[in-house]
Amino acid sequence: MDKIAINQDISENATGQRRAKLRDALVTAAEQTITQQGLGSLRARALAEEVGCAVGAIYNVVEDLDDLVLLVNARTLAALERDLIAADRAGEPAEGPNVAIARLVHMALAYLDFAAAHTPRWRTLFEHRMPAGREVPAWYREQQQRLFAYVEELLLELQANESRVRRALLARSLFSAVHGLVVLGLEEKLQAIPLPVLREQVRFVVNAIGRGMVAPEK
Amino acid sequence: MDKIAINQDISENATGQRRAKLRDALVTAAEQTITQQGLGSLRARALAEEVGCAVGAIYNVVEDLDDLVLLVNARTLAALERDLIAADRAGEPAEGPNVAIARLVHMALAYLDFAAAHTPRWRTLFEHRMPAGREVPAWYREQQQRLFAYVEELLLELQANESRVRRALLARSLFSAVHGLVVLGLEEKLQAIPLPVLREQVRFVVNAIGRGMVAPEK
Repeated sequence: MDKIAINQDISENATGQRRAKLRDALVTAAEQTITQQGLGSLRARALAEEVGCAVGAIYNVVEDLDDLVLLVNARTLAALERDLIAADRAGEPAEGPNVAIARLVHMALAYLDFAAAHTPRWRTLFEHRMPAGREVPAWYREQQQRLFAYVEELLLELQANESRVRRALLARSLFSAVHGLVVLGLEEKLQAIPLPVLREQVRFVVNAIGRGMVAPEK
Repeated sequence: MDKIAINQDISENATGQRRAKLRDALVTAAEQTITQQGLGSLRARALAEEVGCAVGAIYNVVEDLDDLVLLVNARTLAALERDLIAADRAGEPAEGPNVAIARLVHMALAYLDFAAAHTPRWRTLFEHRMPAGREVPAWYREQQQRLFAYVEELLLELQANESRVRRALLARSLFSAVHGLVVLGLEEKLQAIPLPVLREQVRFVVNAIGRGMVAPEK
């Protein structure tokens, strides 16, 4: 490698680091805007002002604002994953249906608590839609899927005779049911439910689903 | 009543009819816009053009566009109620837990089918939020509550020993769980589930909740 190539390498590396730094700053600023004012208030100009760059510079590090929202969502998903793992005491074996049901209840309550504590960021996970014709990128889908994997593992205890594909589908359905309880429970329009009451309802419903899954067919 | 009073009465009545007619036309136009372009595309000017009135005339018959959306939603809720009643064969007694569970499954599937067939109008029921500081009017809440009442009635068979208040809460939770399945199942971002598969999942989860509710405590 001659000197010019080395210098170019160092300079490319420095550019890469600057870009990564700007991108992180933009994600943090976007996260803050979403937390304080909601997704609808995200504007390129305000973000550029916040991080002290030109509006055009934003589009050097992300494709567009949708891209930026996905990066914010990725952080939210990572934070949610940490909470779910903590609640599930991951790594311990499920030890039979009753323990598996109890662990599902813990995860569901952790999901509710996360949504209640970080409502705008959590809402943005679902409110944000890609513009027509653009797909959610594969890396994002994989991060979503990872959350379902924890539920799938517990379903092994409750639906051992089902195929992996069907357990994956059930994990998603179980998550969706809990999500529905959380979404409408925190929603003011349908009269918000006080958190302790909502926790009790989530506990009851997840418990019922688990018990119903293992109850002998009549 | 003298002649002047009678004339005034007739004229007030005619005004009332004109207002009702304009209001109906506006609700229909708003419903169409929501169906074809989504809630975000609702504009007073376009609605006025559509029904052939001045923009200002809109505010003679509804307080504002939020009011108008509530009237559209009221129609949607009424259509949904008709479908739920048809699916539930209302009026027949629940006849024990198994029939009650089967009827809950039918209602849940009817809800899914309604959402799949009328997605934009159904979405608007949940997407629309009153502006800060304004409450959803009582008549609207009552219309919402009526839908839960059907579920509460069936829960009488499954949770006979619970209080009415708790059954009302459970009815709402059961609805919320089904709503979650429907919302995320129809959502493209999380990969939409084909309708037959989604129907099967709704059937499975509602059935499990029902069976879990009546399964003896271990």
